[in-house]
Amino acid sequence: MEFTLNQIASLIGGKVEGDGSLKVSHLDKIQEGLPGGISFLSNEKYETYIYSTEATAVIVSETFKPTKPLKTNLIIVKNAYEGFTLLLETYASIIKSEKTGIEEPSYFDKSSTIGNNFYRGAFSYVGKNCEIGESVKIYPNAFIGDNVKIGDETIIHAGVKVYNDTIIGKKCEIHAGAVIGGDGFGFAPVEDGTYKAIPQLGNVVIGDKVSIGSNTTIDCATMGSTVINNGVKIDNLVQIAHNVTIGENTVIASQTGISGSTEIGKNCVIAGQAGIVGHLKIVDGTTIGAKTGIIKNVTNSGQTLFGYIGFDLKEFLKSYSIFKKLPELQDRIKELEKKL
Amino acid sequence: MEFTLNQIASLIGGKVEGDGSLKVSHLDKIQEGLPGGISFLSNEKYETYIYSTEATAVIVSETFKPTKPLKTNLIIVKNAYEGFTLLLETYASIIKSEKTGIEEPSYFDKSSTIGNNFYRGAFSYVGKNCEIGESVKIYPNAFIGDNVKIGDETIIHAGVKVYNDTIIGKKCEIHAGAVIGGDGFGFAPVEDGTYKAIPQLGNVVIGDKVSIGSNTTIDCATMGSTVINNGVKIDNLVQIAHNVTIGENTVIASQTGISGSTEIGKNCVIAGQAGIVGHLKIVDGTTIGAKTGIIKNVTNSGQTLFGYIGFDLKEFLKSYSIFKKLPELQDRIKELEKKL
Amino acid sequence: MEFTLNQIASLIGGKVEGDGSLKVSHLDKIQEGLPGGISFLSNEKYETYIYSTEATAVIVSETFKPTKPLKTNLIIVKNAYEGFTLLLETYASIIKSEKTGIEEPSYFDKSSTIGNNFYRGAFSYVGKNCEIGESVKIYPNAFIGDNVKIGDETIIHAGVKVYNDTIIGKKCEIHAGAVIGGDGFGFAPVEDGTYKAIPQLGNVVIGDKVSIGSNTTIDCATMGSTVINNGVKIDNLVQIAHNVTIGENTVIASQTGISGSTEIGKNCVIAGQAGIVGHLKIVDGTTIGAKTGIIKNVTNSGQTLFGYIGFDLKEFLKSYSIFKKLPELQDRIKELEKKL
Repeated sequence: MEFTLNQIASLIGGKVEGDGSLKVSHLDKIQEGLPGGISFLSNEKYETYIYSTEATAVIVSETFKPTKPLKTNLIIVKNAYEGFTLLLETYASIIKSEKTGIEEPSYFDKSSTIGNNFYRGAFSYVGKNCEIGESVKIYPNAFIGDNVKIGDETIIHAGVKVYNDTIIGKKCEIHAGAVIGGDGFGFAPVEDGTYKAIPQLGNVVIGDKVSIGSNTTIDCATMGSTVINNGVKIDNLVQIAHNVTIGENTVIASQTGISGSTEIGKNCVIAGQAGIVGHLKIVDGTTIGAKTGIIKNVTNSGQTLFGYIGFDLKEFLKSYSIFKKLPELQDRIKELEKKL
Repeated sequence: MEFTLNQIASLIGGKVEGDGSLKVSHLDKIQEGLPGGISFLSNEKYETYIYSTEATAVIVSETFKPTKPLKTNLIIVKNAYEGFTLLLETYASIIKSEKTGIEEPSYFDKSSTIGNNFYRGAFSYVGKNCEIGESVKIYPNAFIGDNVKIGDETIIHAGVKVYNDTIIGKKCEIHAGAVIGGDGFGFAPVEDGTYKAIPQLGNVVIGDKVSIGSNTTIDCATMGSTVINNGVKIDNLVQIAHNVTIGENTVIASQTGISGSTEIGKNCVIAGQAGIVGHLKIVDGTTIGAKTGIIKNVTNSGQTLFGYIGFDLKEFLKSYSIFKKLPELQDRIKELEKKL
Repeated sequence: MEFTLNQIASLIGGKVEGDGSLKVSHLDKIQEGLPGGISFLSNEKYETYIYSTEATAVIVSETFKPTKPLKTNLIIVKNAYEGFTLLLETYASIIKSEKTGIEEPSYFDKSSTIGNNFYRGAFSYVGKNCEIGESVKIYPNAFIGDNVKIGDETIIHAGVKVYNDTIIGKKCEIHAGAVIGGDGFGFAPVEDGTYKAIPQLGNVVIGDKVSIGSNTTIDCATMGSTVINNGVKIDNLVQIAHNVTIGENTVIASQTGISGSTEIGKNCVIAGQAGIVGHLKIVDGTTIGAKTGIIKNVTNSGQTLFGYIGFDLKEFLKSYSIFKKLPELQDRIKELEKKL
């Protein structure tokens, strides 16, 4: 599809500086801009590229003042990043095919209901007594067990597995291969050295606008619910154990693991490969760095924790910089001992 | 479903203190007990809740002596935790729907056999020459390759993938999305900088009463077998590489990885996100902490190892506490140097 | 199947020392060799086993000179390991069943095309406008979205999920449960504390002879492509984020995570559970140890990096050996302070 710069400016509420009748047909990174493409400049680190880019146009913020001559055309908006995101969204809604209807064969138990405007892909499965809202998309090979509720406009991607009794809110997106509601890892030791499985009778409850990444696993509660609140964003290959609660708008990056019964507050940011042991409380607004291990409650909001056993980021980095010089430090101690 | 306290007491071999004719219909945590609910008190940390809980009844051990007046009714058993687990199990066996029969379409090669009382979900696949025991449940979208053997009463959850030649014992439970028997990661370097795949001709052999978590991956052996012995419990997103052996009743928590040809003993406990390099032997009864890296054989039974490169837990914690104070230590050395 | 030693010698270009008419039917490790089996001796660490093995024959390099009497027969080749690998490959091509044809039901949109000699398993799904080459195998329950291209002789195992617009080269093998092309983890913070999803409009482009492990996830680019170049080998449960580039013949072991927009060079080796933050460049020929965190560009080729925040392997090990002795070091400082 092609659009003129004037059309794009009108769409994102900007004004053209240059030839508004020129047409663009693709979105480019500014450093890889090609004729017919449109880019954006938000981060000043990339300013140098705007003078050399071959993109037909670049979206810039109104604060941008060129310091050299430009070959490209500009679309000036209040905030270039937001303008570009709006353009992206519009573009996405045009190119992302709107799947609807039923592909056969698919399986849908007759005790279950689904709202209008749905998509049920081939080989998708919906068990008994499910209540599925409007405009829900269930991609091929997805499995929805019994007694599951899914809110309006939620997307269940290919091969997602949702166990019985799970409740999923509105406008969620669950990516391919994620498993929601598998048994919690609960085993009671028996005297003969074996373990007995503790029945896992709870469920998973997911709020609205939650995003869950590919192949992530969220276990059901032993009793009660594992709770993922509104607006939580979870990346790929994350493990959420039984009875965990994740507060609103918390973001969890890939390969992080959260052990049983831990409560994570609201608006936390947890980077990749972090690990949090069980039965902890992490206060709202906590930032946990990549690969960080958390073994104690976090009670003061606004901290950034980092390290193998996490503590204050800056202090960790200071200690680690000395760790790197430990051989030298040891030599200095030897030297002192010799002198004394 | 509703049960009277007398019925429950009789089921778990206890006696009622209070009104045995009262009815309960749900299982609650003691701190969240509601009228019509039954809880248990096992860990004394929670004793305070028994005086305020609104649960209709609480299961307690015979050693429990209330120190304040109680509003709730008691069911007294020898061991409250065991009593409650028994109740859980009974409850689970009632509410967990017993799937049986065939949902269509499903695929079952006619050269394969399956015992009585099975469940084969829609879109489940069973390849050639498989021998599947009695009362096996194969959930929707599960894939069983060729020449696979599965013992009685094993449950294969939705979307599990089992490669050719795998052998699975009795009473196992394999959770959704797990992959059993994928190729080991074996590549031989070639002079031109590329790698050539080494054919992976072995299989995976899984004992009885093994539990495998969601999206866990267990690779087949290059030759011979990757072996998961009886009673092993493996959590979600765990990686078990080719030719690994896991001893009986060993427990492995989420996101741990075990590299090729390593032998883990019996009755080990391995916490989450641990990593064990290849070709090691870990003796029976070893405990490995979360995020711990193991790069050497463990030969003395009963150790608890912890750390980035794991060593004795207590020693690691001592060293780590000094690591946190390294800036101070460095200052003290500077001070000493100045004085001399 | 049985072969005589003479047949095997002729296959792998070797000569028999012993009875060439003897028959073997299985491949054994030398330390587990049984009558009727054939083993190989490549690593001298295992030489001791050749004098006691019960294997009928052992493949040895021409440089091998027995120092004790042998009970087994020898097949002598230039390089025992290569000879055995050749035997493995031949054996594999015989025993690994060549699946072809269509199993029903399966789903294949009529706008898509596929070359000759294909396999499409039951419950496999191919969406719109796909172009699939010759001799491609698509196993049961695999999902291929719209506009996907797959090169000749590529194998897509059971339950793999390939999102729209992905391009996969020739002779690739993608193991069960892997997810290719899921949305990148891109969310823009909004003033009210929530996050807005940034549309992920790019794709994944995979070169030739790439191997991808079970349940690995590779996200699509925000714009442009996430690129996995020719000959890359990726193990199980690896996370590759949006806009990452992996150079030719780089090997990535299990559970490693690579964050957004990072570029990994050619011929790198990345061990298990490593983590690399976003927007970095890692030069060709870099080795990154297990569990290592990389937070800076790597610009000098040939380095081996290791550690929680990775630096030179040998230096890390030196520092870590002193870390273990920190309590002693602290005591020595106290002692010095006392003396002064």
